[in-house]
This record gives sequence, structure tokens and C-alpha cells, in this order.
Amino acid sequence: MERVKPRTLSGFMELLPAQQVQMERVMQVLRETYALYGFYPLDTPLIEASEVLLAKGGGETEKQIYRFQKGDSDLSLRFDLTVPLARYVAQHYGELTFPFRRFQIGKVYRGERAQRGRFREFYQADIDVIGDGKLDIINEAEVPSIIYKTFTSLGLRRFKIRLNNRKVLNGFFAILGLTEKSGDVMRTIDKLEKIGADKVKAVLVDDFAVPGETADELLAFIQTPGGTAGILAALEGYKGKNEVFDQGADELKTVARYMAAFGVPDDHFEIDLTIARGLDYYTGTVYETAMLDHPEIGSICSGGRYDNLAEYYTDKQLPGVGISIGLTRLFYVLGEQGYLNGERNTAPADVLILPMTDDLAPAIELATGLRDAGLRTQLYGEQKKFKHKIGYADKLSVPYVIFLGEDEIAQGVYAVKDMATGEQVKASFDEAVSRIRAGLAAKHAGTVIVDKV
Amino acid sequence: MERVKPRTLSGFMELLPAQQVQMERVMQVLRETYALYGFYPLDTPLIEASEVLLAKGGGETEKQIYRFQKGDSDLSLRFDLTVPLARYVAQHYGELTFPFRRFQIGKVYRGERAQRGRFREFYQADIDVIGDGKLDIINEAEVPSIIYKTFTSLGLRRFKIRLNNRKVLNGFFAILGLTEKSGDVMRTIDKLEKIGADKVKAVLVDDFAVPGETADELLAFIQTPGGTAGILAALEGYKGKNEVFDQGADELKTVARYMAAFGVPDDHFEIDLTIARGLDYYTGTVYETAMLDHPEIGSICSGGRYDNLAEYYTDKQLPGVGISIGLTRLFYVLGEQGYLNGERNTAPADVLILPMTDDLAPAIELATGLRDAGLRTQLYGEQKKFKHKIGYADKLSVPYVIFLGEDEIAQGVYAVKDMATGEQVKASFDEAVSRIRAGLAAKHAGTVIVDKV
Repeated sequence: MERVKPRTLSGFMELLPAQQVQMERVMQVLRETYALYGFYPLDTPLIEASEVLLAKGGGETEKQIYRFQKGDSDLSLRFDLTVPLARYVAQHYGELTFPFRRFQIGKVYRGERAQRGRFREFYQADIDVIGDGKLDIINEAEVPSIIYKTFTSLGLRRFKIRLNNRKVLNGFFAILGLTEKSGDVMRTIDKLEKIGADKVKAVLVDDFAVPGETADELLAFIQTPGGTAGILAALEGYKGKNEVFDQGADELKTVARYMAAFGVPDDHFEIDLTIARGLDYYTGTVYETAMLDHPEIGSICSGGRYDNLAEYYTDKQLPGVGISIGLTRLFYVLGEQGYLNGERNTAPADVLILPMTDDLAPAIELATGLRDAGLRTQLYGEQKKFKHKIGYADKLSVPYVIFLGEDEIAQGVYAVKDMATGEQVKASFDEAVSRIRAGLAAKHAGTVIVDKV
Repeated sequence: MERVKPRTLSGFMELLPAQQVQMERVMQVLRETYALYGFYPLDTPLIEASEVLLAKGGGETEKQIYRFQKGDSDLSLRFDLTVPLARYVAQHYGELTFPFRRFQIGKVYRGERAQRGRFREFYQADIDVIGDGKLDIINEAEVPSIIYKTFTSLGLRRFKIRLNNRKVLNGFFAILGLTEKSGDVMRTIDKLEKIGADKVKAVLVDDFAVPGETADELLAFIQTPGGTAGILAALEGYKGKNEVFDQGADELKTVARYMAAFGVPDDHFEIDLTIARGLDYYTGTVYETAMLDHPEIGSICSGGRYDNLAEYYTDKQLPGVGISIGLTRLFYVLGEQGYLNGERNTAPADVLILPMTDDLAPAIELATGLRDAGLRTQLYGEQKKFKHKIGYADKLSVPYVIFLGEDEIAQGVYAVKDMATGEQVKASFDEAVSRIRAGLAAKHAGTVIVDKV
């Protein structure tokens, strides 16, 4: 028979079983954390009509999208979870209760140039709160606490959430007479960390005809020192010149004021006026999250406030705030940088039963009993040499093996071996279950990520 | 602005939030049950090279597939989880340990004619055990116990697992001199339940030139009465004529013998010689699962033993046994037939906090405390009338509301309202947490499915 070489496409992550167990743990922590904050789970189709998905149109998106014809239909794979959310909320508006809080963890598709650590199929993990007409600033203040809880639950410690407010920036642009260039100016200062202040000034002056002094003033403003307290104080000094600016300054103050009540320690967030976020649709607070020891990775969780989620689908005003984690890339980076907890067991089973008799009924009854007791159990039924059987438990890192031979059956006991210590004891069923349960608690202790502080 | 009508494609299921909560519960039960049996979770790309996915080629598959060009690449969306598993095992053969046990719950795509209850995007939930060269019959005996545990854990009670063995059928075909027509005969008798014995006979005789007497003999055989015990006894009577038949009869006997040890009650399985399964690649035990009160739905979980999973990708002999649940269709049918447990709370939060003061800090601290205590908590921060706020809790069915006004803050207590009973008490933080936890246990009791026996 002629054979096809088994392979995955370039840019498509596929994990080996033990890695997949770690990935599932990450996803489970995200699901549980989002649920703690009262978000509904949501699932939407991966395929949508191109007309729907590309309603906004334009730019990079359209070039990267997976778009194809099926029969008479022009279809596309989703490239993010925000557009499907906008479509969902507009479509089901009458059946939803607002503020509508949802999380979604799902695959999205972008035909980017393939390179190390960049993926064409990747998971995004998003949360959004959508208001009907209005949405209180308290929602913007709550978001950093969700970011904080998520990453600390995963085990990450050395990270910082950076906040800014688009109204402060746009208001300041207005004070400087740059309102007509605000989009270009915003996108330029967003590159500050990447290209440095000199180049930002050069682009502002050369490409967008911003006067040199104005550019200097802007750069000095966004680089205001003094951390959260210093910046908030400095903002007070600019007040009274522009209404949008004043509103933004008040919002930043409110968000910062509630951080402690939301459980976010001082050293895990800061106001940073250089944070701009490229996307046009943000209108209020914007967020980025940096790993302190790996700034080169860029933001691992970003988002912001927007005033009009679904304008391409409905005339309803639907403001919201949301954040997104690029989960596949994050998992890849955590693995590369040695953050994944290798100590935590990744076996698919807690116990492996090795029957030593021809009649398998006693071993099967034991497996059924252990499963009913909630222990993940495999029964090894292959006709192999003993060495091979025990090697199977070793390779999978199954923590406990139970041998069941004529002697044990006659005595009504089970020979339970702890594979890590090599210790083997004969135990009744109840003793075996307690022993294994107690041992597992230790083997499953610890977070998914280990951050060596 | 010109707007696009928000819509999903025909044949693509999308659930409202409360339904989605139920669907997530079903998936969680599946994940937990499969884990109890020692299966690894697995995730593979939704897109594969068409050459890889269609290596087997042929028939219905190729017509229904979502296939498209992206740049120079000929790509397809997966149409099941078995072909990607075959590719995965062949590709990663050297890095896997056998028997390799994996489950996968994922979306697959088939461009079927759209009709009520049929989906073009749907979840399959598969488990498979793959051996390297050999795989013991014990694995085939274990499968019904996984089906039984899965459906009973979901809450389904009135169902039956039907077993047969392809070797028994093929052996009997050989005894009747029908070996050369075995594929056609197999597919024809697979339609027995749908079209009846007379039509099966007509097809066998008219289309495949089976002599009338032979067809009668075959129909009599597969309809052997007497249930599991009667059929096993009858099979003994045919022994000695064909080696394959004898082997199949022994396998059926072994599988049936271990059912009790595996915890499957007598009334939940039966040997049924009419079960053929259309697919060519089954070679041993085959399974179907019927809902006793809704036979018209067809099998809700099917599968079987195969001898060569990945022959299109590798020369390794990889026998296996697996089953698949068409999850999206099953969920749809359960909903239609009123099986989903409407009593169980589907709120996204356990508690809603209604702050009654301008300073939100005390309410936020309470929310943080409740979340740290593991309670799913929402903080209602919108500026709305009281009636609207309490209406929000009602619409979402949030079971507990905590009011926090000046009085409560001054007294250091919380006004906790049970929304179901209307009962409201003032409680300390710890009392509030215990009270809510105790109440939730009852509100979350019960399975996802309620089978009115």
C-alpha cells in the first residue's frame, strides 16, 4: 500500500500526552477562575459567513483569514473571539440579560507567516462584560483583579498589570491640538517600548507633522515618573483644560482606588501612560500584563474598555470591557522558559492493576471498585512479561501499581506498590484506597506554573 | 451605517447561556468518566492537509468534507476524530506508550444536507485504546462498562448496550458460502432494524444473488432468540465449522462473562447478532447503545474493535477498540425529549452582591472574600433602580443576593437573601459563607439528565 506521511501543518500546535495534561490543567484553572467571577461559558461556531465575520472589514484581518467557498456559501474561520461575541450579543440581544458576562476559550485561525512561537491555529481565552447602553466604571476596576487571580492561580508570581486610560491620552492629544491626528499618534506611541523615545519622536515629527516641541511635551507626559501615586498626582495638575481628559483622569483614579479592595497587591499593578494598545475601538481603561523576568515576550493578557461592541450588527449601544489571553502562545512560552511544573504527575491514571491470574474477574472487580471510589484506574490486560508490564507503569509515571495474584486473592488483600518510593504493602480494599488517596494529594500538590522567585 | 444581519449558518448549533451551562456539564461528566478509566486527554488540529485526512479516500466523506485552498496548501477540516487519531499515533509512534488510551472531545465538520437535528459542525466524544501489534480481548470487554458509567453518570437509566462480534458474522457468512459477498451482506443486515426482515431478504436475493434459503438461514441466525444466554448457547451449536466463527463466539463469551465484574447490570447489555455496524474496518466486537424509550433516535454511542488503525500512514500494525458519542446531536435530542434537568441551577454565579452605598470598597472587599472562599460571585455595580437590580438576579436565577448598606457596614453584617424562599437573614461573613455553601449543595444536586423511570 502507498502510504501518506503523517504530519501536522506548519503553525499548528499538537502536544504529546503529558504536555496535553498540563495544557488541560491550564485551561481548567482559567475556567474555574472565570467562573469565580460570575462569567457564563460560551461556545460559538468556528465557521461563520464571511459577510458576518468581515462586517468591519479592512487591513491585516482580511489578508490572514481562512476564507473559502462551500457550495454557494462564502465562509470564514473566526480569527478572534470578539467578533463572534459581537455577533452573538446582537443576534440574541432579546434573550440575554445585561450586563452580560461571558468567557470563551476556543481556537481561532490566522494565516500569519509561520515562525517559531507563532501559531496559525491557537486558543484564545477571553472574558468580556457587555452592558446595555451603559456600563459602570466598576467593571473596568474589576478586570485587573481577574487577571491577578488568574495568573496567581496558575502559579505565576512575577508579573505586573499595567493600566492606562484612552480618555487621558485622547484628552491630552486635544490639549496639544493633535485631535485630528489622534489615531496615528496613538499607534505611534504604542511602539515606545519597542522602538524607543527618539524614534517615536522622529515618526511623530517626520511622518505626521507633529511640531517638535509638541512631540517632546507628549513624550514627557506619557513618561511621567512616580508610579501610580505620582502619575495620579500629576494628572490633577492638567485638569480643567479638557473634559475628556478630566473624565479619564477620574476613571484612572477610581480604578486605582479599588485595587486593594479587589485584592490586587500594590506591586502587581501600575498606571503607565505609555500603554496605548493599537486597536481603534478601545475608549477607556486599557490593560497589558508583563512577565517581569521576560519583558521580551510582550503582554500575556491585554484588553480594554470599548463603547460600541456590535455596531456592525445592531443599532443598540453595547459598551463593554474585556481581556484576552493568547493561550497557545503563552503555553509555548511557559514551556520554553521552563515555567511548567515538571514535578506534578501527568499520568493518565492514579493506579495500574496488574492481574497475575488467568481469571481476570477479581482484577476487574478491583478496577470497578477503585473507579467507584473515584480513583483513575487502568487495568493492564495484555499478555506480556512482568518486566514489560511494570515498565508500562514507569513510562506513564503511574504513581501506584496493585498486583493481584492467587495469594492476594486467597487472603483478600491487595499488594500496593508506591512507584516513587518502591515501598510495597499488603492492604485491604479500604486501606488501599485511603493510602492511594493520601499519596495522590501530595503528588498533585502545586500549581501548573512554578515561578522561581 | 449599513449593518449586516447577525446570524449563524444553517446546521451550526449555538446555545443560549443557560443551555450552554448544561452542555458544559455534560462535557465535564464525560471528561471525568473517561479520566476514571485512565484515558489521556488529546487535542489535535481542526485543519489538516487534505492528502493526510483523505488518505483512505472514497465515498460519502469526500463529498461532505470542508476542503479549501490556502496559499499553495490543499486543506480540509476534520470530519471525525478517528482519522486524526490514526495520523497522531503513526506520527508520534516512537513517543507514545502502548496500549495508548486517549479520549478526545472536539468539533468535526460534515457538509450534510441540513435538516432538523442534523448538524454540520458537531462535537464528537471519542475514546480509543490502541495496541502495538496486539490488543487483548479484555479491552473489548471493558468498553461496555465505560458506556454504562458514562450514561449513568449523566443520569440516563433506560438504555441498553447491544453487542455483537464481526468474527461471528463473517464466520457465519463463510459457513453459508457468502464470504465473497461479506461486505454487501454486512451492510444489508445492518439495515434490519430500519427496513425489516422481508426487505433485507429481498435485497440479499435480488441485489446480491444470495439464494433464498441461504438468506432465510442467515436471517434466522441473526435473529436467534433467548437473549445473551440463549444466543451464547446457540453459538456453541455452530462451533467446529469455521475457525473465525469459533474465535468470535469465544470472544463474545469472554466479553459477556466479565460484564458483572465490570459493574454492568444484566438488564443494561445484551448480545444481539443483528448489530453489524456499517463501517468496513471493524473486525471484532461491535457496540451500539439504544435509549429504550426512544429507539427512533438510533444508537447514541457506537463503536467497535478494529485491527489496523493507521495503515494509510504506517506499516505498524495498530489494533484498537473505540467508541464515539455524537455529542451535539445527543444534547439536541435530550433537550427535545425533555431529558435535561431543568431543576438544577444554571446561574453563572452563586451570589450577587448589591451595594447600597456610594463607596463600593466594602462591597468589593466582600466580593473578594467570597471568591477567595470559592463562591462564584458577581458584584452588581450599575446605577439602576433597586427593582432592576433584583430583577437581574431573578432573570439569571442567581440563588443568593447579599445587600450591603450603611447599616450592615456599621454592624459588620451582611443581609443574605435566599432567592428561592425569599428568606433574608443578617449574618457574619463566615455564617454567610456556610449558609450559602449548604444551600448550594442542594441546588446543585442531581444529574444533568433526568430519566423518568
